[in-house]
Amino acid sequence: MRMVDIISKKKNGLGLSKEEIEFFVKGITDGSIPDYQASALLMAICLKGMDKEETLNLTLSMAASGDNIDLSEIPGIKVDKHSTGGVGDKTTIILGPIVASLGVPVAKMSGRGLGHTGGTIDKLEAIPSFTTELSQREFVSIVKEIGLAVAGQTGNLVPADKKLYALRDVTATVESIPLIASSIMSKKLASGADCIVLDVKVGSGAFMKTIEEARKLARAMVDIGKGAGLRTVAVITDMDRPLGNTVGNALEVMEAIEVLSENGPDDITEVCIVLAGKMLELAGKGSFDECRTLAGEAIKDGRALRKLKEMIRAQKGREDVVDNIELLPRARYTREYTASSSGYIEAIISDRLGIASMLLGAGRATKESTINPAAGIVLLKKPGDEVKAGEPIIVLHADDENLFQNSVKELDKAVIISVKKPQNANLIMDIIE
Amino acid sequence: MRMVDIISKKKNGLGLSKEEIEFFVKGITDGSIPDYQASALLMAICLKGMDKEETLNLTLSMAASGDNIDLSEIPGIKVDKHSTGGVGDKTTIILGPIVASLGVPVAKMSGRGLGHTGGTIDKLEAIPSFTTELSQREFVSIVKEIGLAVAGQTGNLVPADKKLYALRDVTATVESIPLIASSIMSKKLASGADCIVLDVKVGSGAFMKTIEEARKLARAMVDIGKGAGLRTVAVITDMDRPLGNTVGNALEVMEAIEVLSENGPDDITEVCIVLAGKMLELAGKGSFDECRTLAGEAIKDGRALRKLKEMIRAQKGREDVVDNIELLPRARYTREYTASSSGYIEAIISDRLGIASMLLGAGRATKESTINPAAGIVLLKKPGDEVKAGEPIIVLHADDENLFQNSVKELDKAVIISVKKPQNANLIMDIIE
Repeated sequence: MRMVDIISKKKNGLGLSKEEIEFFVKGITDGSIPDYQASALLMAICLKGMDKEETLNLTLSMAASGDNIDLSEIPGIKVDKHSTGGVGDKTTIILGPIVASLGVPVAKMSGRGLGHTGGTIDKLEAIPSFTTELSQREFVSIVKEIGLAVAGQTGNLVPADKKLYALRDVTATVESIPLIASSIMSKKLASGADCIVLDVKVGSGAFMKTIEEARKLARAMVDIGKGAGLRTVAVITDMDRPLGNTVGNALEVMEAIEVLSENGPDDITEVCIVLAGKMLELAGKGSFDECRTLAGEAIKDGRALRKLKEMIRAQKGREDVVDNIELLPRARYTREYTASSSGYIEAIISDRLGIASMLLGAGRATKESTINPAAGIVLLKKPGDEVKAGEPIIVLHADDENLFQNSVKELDKAVIISVKKPQNANLIMDIIE
Repeated sequence: MRMVDIISKKKNGLGLSKEEIEFFVKGITDGSIPDYQASALLMAICLKGMDKEETLNLTLSMAASGDNIDLSEIPGIKVDKHSTGGVGDKTTIILGPIVASLGVPVAKMSGRGLGHTGGTIDKLEAIPSFTTELSQREFVSIVKEIGLAVAGQTGNLVPADKKLYALRDVTATVESIPLIASSIMSKKLASGADCIVLDVKVGSGAFMKTIEEARKLARAMVDIGKGAGLRTVAVITDMDRPLGNTVGNALEVMEAIEVLSENGPDDITEVCIVLAGKMLELAGKGSFDECRTLAGEAIKDGRALRKLKEMIRAQKGREDVVDNIELLPRARYTREYTASSSGYIEAIISDRLGIASMLLGAGRATKESTINPAAGIVLLKKPGDEVKAGEPIIVLHADDENLFQNSVKELDKAVIISVKKPQNANLIMDIIE
């Protein structure tokens, strides 16, 4: 088999066989296929696509390229969840405890932030002494014991994706449904769960900008999951507006604790109940409506919050933050951002909000940057709210007052105030199963 | 400027600016753009195309990437000729002397064989002690003196093309009209002539398999030539059947001498008179019809043959081969290939004929192979000819009798005999100007 023939086939719009895809993924992983051939194929895939079978085969080959986590020791149906990422997305920290508190084990591998804001791992590390660096044995044993753990990626999980992603990033081949879907799903398959709930974000703060694109990606990922024999469902949620009121690592942990204390913003609470409902439904806990009710009850009776506390303890973090959020790191300085005119907040553009937060120290400008867990942004007003000129609408948190200026400049571009009250879109835009 | 943005633009089907194309070509030449980014862009160009302006800018940037040959010392309008290559194509060895003998200087840079058969340089080197390794000064001085020289590429001519061609070869990005056209024309522009006649071959033995493809390539190249301020014309000629009766280096030189002695096959004589006519027309020697007549006369009165002899002498070759072709290398063994059945030769598939000839030693199986100048094939019959079963139709020439067997196997696939007399297509299929 020759790589040049495989490239040629895809260039001419033909489907690749299982063997050809395996040859490619193996060659990428062991370095026998040079990057210049891989990038030519990636571009051909971007422009000519891959059908359902090819995309499944690509995902299976990638999942098989490295370690696979064995969760078979953990009894019960294990549910995993993946969000395509968005600004202020702290759903994992809320969902994990809800679902685990209802007897469904959640073994969640998570990543650090790739974009402007921190990832779930960065957020959890804002909890004093919390560790996400668990060996595979520790990870499995914590889930076995308390039903929940969140760990950074351990071992050599999907090395093919690491190589391909680095190449796609510099060759303008990131935006391709089969490539995005296989990248996400290969990591899910290698993580060993039995069911997967996908949270596909759509809007200005998300990777998928339109509902059509989001539906295509959701469909591709659900098809892969089912093709690999897993129960899989995708919930398409709105990311045109920030989810919740906080962006920044410790601030988001506080908000997650508030949601689990029945005290959080409505939007994120609603999204989490829907996602938890789907996770519980896939795990066989009842109908979707029954499972949503279960999820709501787990918040109401404090079970979910207690599960979060158990997880923090198991992962060596300071568990009393759950009872006293003041124990989480706090920024030295805060500054109010005020409305420039009277009217309604038409939009707060999520990705600009993410940049504003990063400029305060809450995200990484480059891979080498360190995150300040205390830094970030709290929204006092959300899209749809009425505001008066001069009224505070956002609070900025930073450890260095000099950082406010650039962040405020970004917020000037993020916040759009208009005279007419805007229509808010549905938070849950579609469910693909 | 970032290469990833340039790739992204082309991936999205947008046109690239002159500056972006220059950035790419410069980066490829100096190595600052890695191969994996170049190959991604090449694939995007293959699939999204390039318009006339982009193709011209790419060609101009490539031509400027290395040395440019200065022919200004040579008085008169210099005409260059390029053939897109085909099996048994010895037109340069015939055309050069015709045109030069009529007072139009021909300074021809040529290549070695890339495909199965030798290139013009390989063919001329079959002449004992003939050298094509001329310095730029020697090259110009020979053209100045006798009006004709054929040299291998000297100096650092279009290094960007060398890099891109090597990359295209292994990334399935060879077949792309703008990339083929810019590769050919960049070398023509760097070679310093004032007019260019392009011989675009079409058919089974050529790179362009259909007349539509050939017309597109011809149009792209003529547009580039004119865009660069050169008089340019393309003649589309049939390569569904071998041109002339010989394939193999010394055998083709013999045939060229025969054509210039009024003793050659009709097909190649006709093609050469048309191409020479066009070269003379571009150089201002009269109308196309007048120039064709001039070309015919130069053969008839022996002027063209004498010019070939002068060139061989100037390039240190054994000039008396012109008077006695027996002085050219001869293979030790010959073998006849006979008709398997009675009927008409419907086709002799040119590229299979090329492989059969290569298997005798006349071409390179790999870049490292050495060519046997004496080896090759002589056709006794051509498509359209009637044959009887057992009648010899081809003679194979080799220095090793063991080579015949594999070559004959290839000929079995090359020669198609049918009961019906086939229609022969026109040799000159179109002229694009």
